[in-house]
Amino acid sequence: MTVSSSVDQRVSLAVSTVIFALRPHPETGLMTLWLPLVRRIREPYEGQWALPGGPLEADEDLAASARHTLERTTGLAPNYLEQLYAFGNVDRSPDERVVSIVYWALVRQDEVARAVDGENVEWFVADELPPLAFDHTAIVEYALARLRAKITYTPIAHAFLPPEFTLADLRAVHEAVLRTTLDPANFRRQVMATKTLVPTGTCLKGTSHRPPALYRFEAGAPSPSPEEQR
Amino acid sequence: MTVSSSVDQRVSLAVSTVIFALRPHPETGLMTLWLPLVRRIREPYEGQWALPGGPLEADEDLAASARHTLERTTGLAPNYLEQLYAFGNVDRSPDERVVSIVYWALVRQDEVARAVDGENVEWFVADELPPLAFDHTAIVEYALARLRAKITYTPIAHAFLPPEFTLADLRAVHEAVLRTTLDPANFRRQVMATKTLVPTGTCLKGTSHRPPALYRFEAGAPSPSPEEQR
Repeated sequence: MTVSSSVDQRVSLAVSTVIFALRPHPETGLMTLWLPLVRRIREPYEGQWALPGGPLEADEDLAASARHTLERTTGLAPNYLEQLYAFGNVDRSPDERVVSIVYWALVRQDEVARAVDGENVEWFVADELPPLAFDHTAIVEYALARLRAKITYTPIAHAFLPPEFTLADLRAVHEAVLRTTLDPANFRRQVMATKTLVPTGTCLKGTSHRPPALYRFEAGAPSPSPEEQR
Repeated sequence: MTVSSSVDQRVSLAVSTVIFALRPHPETGLMTLWLPLVRRIREPYEGQWALPGGPLEADEDLAASARHTLERTTGLAPNYLEQLYAFGNVDRSPDERVVSIVYWALVRQDEVARAVDGENVEWFVADELPPLAFDHTAIVEYALARLRAKITYTPIAHAFLPPEFTLADLRAVHEAVLRTTLDPANFRRQVMATKTLVPTGTCLKGTSHRPPALYRFEAGAPSPSPEEQR
């Protein structure tokens, strides 16, 4: 094994973040996944859209770096933050070798309305993105695939919801993420079988003849990060 | 955000590999998980055991680096190689900031007999390790947890087996990884329900009155790496 000796041979490390939120689609009005992108103000890919992120600071943990990026980009704190993957192909950046450790974050529907866009930040429908800088299109596709797989076998949908929600709220999250419609009775049966929901004992306040019951997710759901598990 | 300006502030990037193989336990004789470790020949942690790995070369992809480490450590090629996690806590190395991108590899039972130990390499029972350098104990625990979870819902056991195997072979892998005994009839029913096995139409050659049928895993099982999926 040879050892990199010159500074030019060094590998740079960046942390980037895919931030998903649910908002209505501008044309259909249906709830759909959005994410914020940052317009690059320097080469390479000047003027193109890219995932928010930046070089890892020497005194900053990986997840902390992702959290700071989210705060800087949107003014929000993540309700769910998980390491997605480290992307490090030799040719993914034209001028230097950069390995990007990518996190994905989910923000709550009731919080996203309070998002304050950072400089050069714009939100896009996640499935209708312009061409992105670097390999960021492939990274978003991988994050979408992970989210759509994971929502079918873990209670990750809670990260989009306020602490108390109705079964219809939960179904709407699944429908928006999976871009489909789900049968209410089947959905209720399946989600109750997972034993991850706890009835709060209260109902949604309103004028309905039969107000829907409110639920919360069972506490103690496993943390997604091995660092945070320890 | 401040930008790291001095060389001292740089973050180093390493790739380490958790290499699992099945071998008999030295006392019980039961098949169990082993992994190779490398004795450190310099500070920090000189003389202690650590996961095999090294700094990422500027011209080497991440998975290629893990493959080279495996080859250098054991003389083997992995039958399964997947990125596990990037470990990057600020304080995980005493002298400098190092982020380690960790891969985990599985090698076949029939190949591990051909392993050639590299310099300062020794194999250990995975659940009975000495204290390891850095945060490597926690990394191995995380890799073990991932393997034990994943074997229950993906056909990952095939990576320990030759291309053709009996249901008893497959059950033995599950029993060794999960450190338990499994009812043969239940196991057969569960594994056949996954529809990942294909009968080869042949039987194990031998003297048995009823020789057991041979199976192979269905081709086209998804690759674990997003780079390799594309």
